[in-house]
Amino acid sequence: MARVVVVGGGFAGLWAVRALARAPVEITLIDSCNHHLFQPLLYQVATAGLAAPSIAAPLRHILRRQRNVTVQLATVSAIDRAGRTVIAAGARYPYDYLIVASGVSHAYFGHEDWAGHAPGLKTLADALHMRARFLTAFERAESSRCAAETRAWLTFVVVGGGPTGVELAGTLAEIARHTLTREFRRIDPRTAQVLLVEAGARILPAFAPDLSASAHRQLERLGVTVRTNSPVTSIAATEVRVADETIHCRTVIWAAGVAASGLGRALAAPVDRAGRVLVGDDLSLPGSPEIFVAGDLAAASGRGGPVPGIAPAAKQMGVHAAACILARLAGRPSAPFRYRHQGLLATIGRGAAVVDLGRVRLTGLVAWWFWLLAHVYFLIGFRNRLVVLIDWADAYWTYHRGARIIVEPSQPP
Amino acid sequence: MARVVVVGGGFAGLWAVRALARAPVEITLIDSCNHHLFQPLLYQVATAGLAAPSIAAPLRHILRRQRNVTVQLATVSAIDRAGRTVIAAGARYPYDYLIVASGVSHAYFGHEDWAGHAPGLKTLADALHMRARFLTAFERAESSRCAAETRAWLTFVVVGGGPTGVELAGTLAEIARHTLTREFRRIDPRTAQVLLVEAGARILPAFAPDLSASAHRQLERLGVTVRTNSPVTSIAATEVRVADETIHCRTVIWAAGVAASGLGRALAAPVDRAGRVLVGDDLSLPGSPEIFVAGDLAAASGRGGPVPGIAPAAKQMGVHAAACILARLAGRPSAPFRYRHQGLLATIGRGAAVVDLGRVRLTGLVAWWFWLLAHVYFLIGFRNRLVVLIDWADAYWTYHRGARIIVEPSQPP
Repeated sequence: MARVVVVGGGFAGLWAVRALARAPVEITLIDSCNHHLFQPLLYQVATAGLAAPSIAAPLRHILRRQRNVTVQLATVSAIDRAGRTVIAAGARYPYDYLIVASGVSHAYFGHEDWAGHAPGLKTLADALHMRARFLTAFERAESSRCAAETRAWLTFVVVGGGPTGVELAGTLAEIARHTLTREFRRIDPRTAQVLLVEAGARILPAFAPDLSASAHRQLERLGVTVRTNSPVTSIAATEVRVADETIHCRTVIWAAGVAASGLGRALAAPVDRAGRVLVGDDLSLPGSPEIFVAGDLAAASGRGGPVPGIAPAAKQMGVHAAACILARLAGRPSAPFRYRHQGLLATIGRGAAVVDLGRVRLTGLVAWWFWLLAHVYFLIGFRNRLVVLIDWADAYWTYHRGARIIVEPSQPP
Repeated sequence: MARVVVVGGGFAGLWAVRALARAPVEITLIDSCNHHLFQPLLYQVATAGLAAPSIAAPLRHILRRQRNVTVQLATVSAIDRAGRTVIAAGARYPYDYLIVASGVSHAYFGHEDWAGHAPGLKTLADALHMRARFLTAFERAESSRCAAETRAWLTFVVVGGGPTGVELAGTLAEIARHTLTREFRRIDPRTAQVLLVEAGARILPAFAPDLSASAHRQLERLGVTVRTNSPVTSIAATEVRVADETIHCRTVIWAAGVAASGLGRALAAPVDRAGRVLVGDDLSLPGSPEIFVAGDLAAASGRGGPVPGIAPAAKQMGVHAAACILARLAGRPSAPFRYRHQGLLATIGRGAAVVDLGRVRLTGLVAWWFWLLAHVYFLIGFRNRLVVLIDWADAYWTYHRGARIIVEPSQPP
């Protein structure tokens, strides 16, 4: 039986595995995490709205009924193209077909020293760390006896005006303005300042310009200060330099950029500037038709330009890679990948969102309901959708956030 | 206004603060965690049944309406009895009355080197660590290619036959026998061995002897191997010595003993063998009537012997310490503490528990329903009781466990 190895259990990898459920193949799914993550809601874990298990499910639980797949918790260290073998945690996994879907992580564009001061958001561990950081900032503000220091603890800078940055900035502003009121005695959390800084001319550059403008207005209504054309030039423990200005702040969140996981390089294949692997029409590696790259790691093109790094695109690529393998097994040629763009969604806060479906564009409350229903719909398959709904209904009516638990040891003062 | 400092936001400290809600005092509650923890369900977080936020709530959220209390997230480093000042995170908190309720942590009785191999369970961080450990053990068993190593990864030793040890052992056996079936391809999780080892003659020694015997039988029915009169003599990374036998195992859980937090020593007061502070009749420190010690940290006595280290006792002590302060403020003498014993409960697994209410003793399904209703009742006040109920109903019907997410980096193979 043909051996298929899939690296990465995100949307691309998991959808590829599922698409091979009835195929006469032996699949090994390798991931360094034990769970599939519903990444579009990761910002909710980071901002204490949802518990980590509500948006993650063990890969082996999801795939327990698919008997042709073995799940391995291991980190891939090398891919031997000539020997058609994946090496992970000291073990060797020979393959006839390989799907690499190990995704992206945040990148600091040569400023790796910023990582310690400005954590990014890609994994559950990132989200829990970010949650502990911003909750601890309010605690430090309360215990500080120096006005300038209190100010710095109450200043939050979100770097990057893409969907993640917009979601984080909007939610942080809501928490400061609504969730935490009455809980502190020495500070007024409503005086917290949330800045969203974006190097480009507008936030949400992938959306239509009028939606960017609407998101900008909706954010400012929530209390976020939005600065466009504002490249960050330095980040240190207590300050950020944005263009020519120094902002004294103790919490910086990085939502500005991603780079492909190191496996792109392990494939020894041509990559683009962000480290994404340049793939052929059918998502296979030029020269190695038995290797496919899917999801955010792949630099693929659709009719309207590059395929965006969003969950629906990753699912489509995963399914396509699986279909190509099925075609090859049947002796048919593989078809080229065609990306079907379904739209772009970004939520901003309670009743605030933007939705870009091409001709149909929504803003405000209507967009927010659209966003909510879409996400609940796509959470189906997760057992936690009911719990998520309860948490959201609770948050909507009361502004409470149920996961405001600092589990990491608190930072030194 | 009189200044009251309370150290510790557990059951004793939080109940003391609440009992002072209408008193003309200025309260400062200092805790090194930002949350109150519903400790009786901590084993559920450790065994992936509940998400961490479901059993914890931020102290400042619980106390937001009580305007006479300021919550400080800080670790107390010293208590200056002569200067009547608590020192925490570099700041000084002068007091007229002090309640120390900083609880206990697990202790290894002079074998501190065991700590790395046999984690204990007192905090949420402990629970998340333990969860990652036992889930990772099954992953390692699946990827191991050596039969002896697989066996060791599938052997779990719980040290200590008190309520926590019984709960952990019973739940681990259930997970292996029911939750994880069908999810692995190379191992059968049902072959996992769970041992509960207890140095004394019977498990649950605080319960009536017939209940100990019932718990023993109920555990064995769930698949746990119970060994009494089996003191542990050494714990290393890959083996445990119990009496004269060597057990090869990779997962050891410590539920054998607790010692008072270091603050007992910081008070420079007489302590018992476990480091608990010897308090007077009214829970105050002999020679320092303005200092009270409450909860697990206090070595107090009731009519029937020492007061047990359980949540109801801690609440009663906290309320009593507050009442003593109110009496002193009113110029009245403080009353002696009288412990009202309400009973002992321990759950073992699905439909299995023991309840000791003195004359009334329950076992099996009836005891389990009693335990369930008591815990749901006492979770009231936590917003998460609905979420907990859903998780439990789900677990009861399907044996699923919703929080099977490994967030820590996985252990090296």
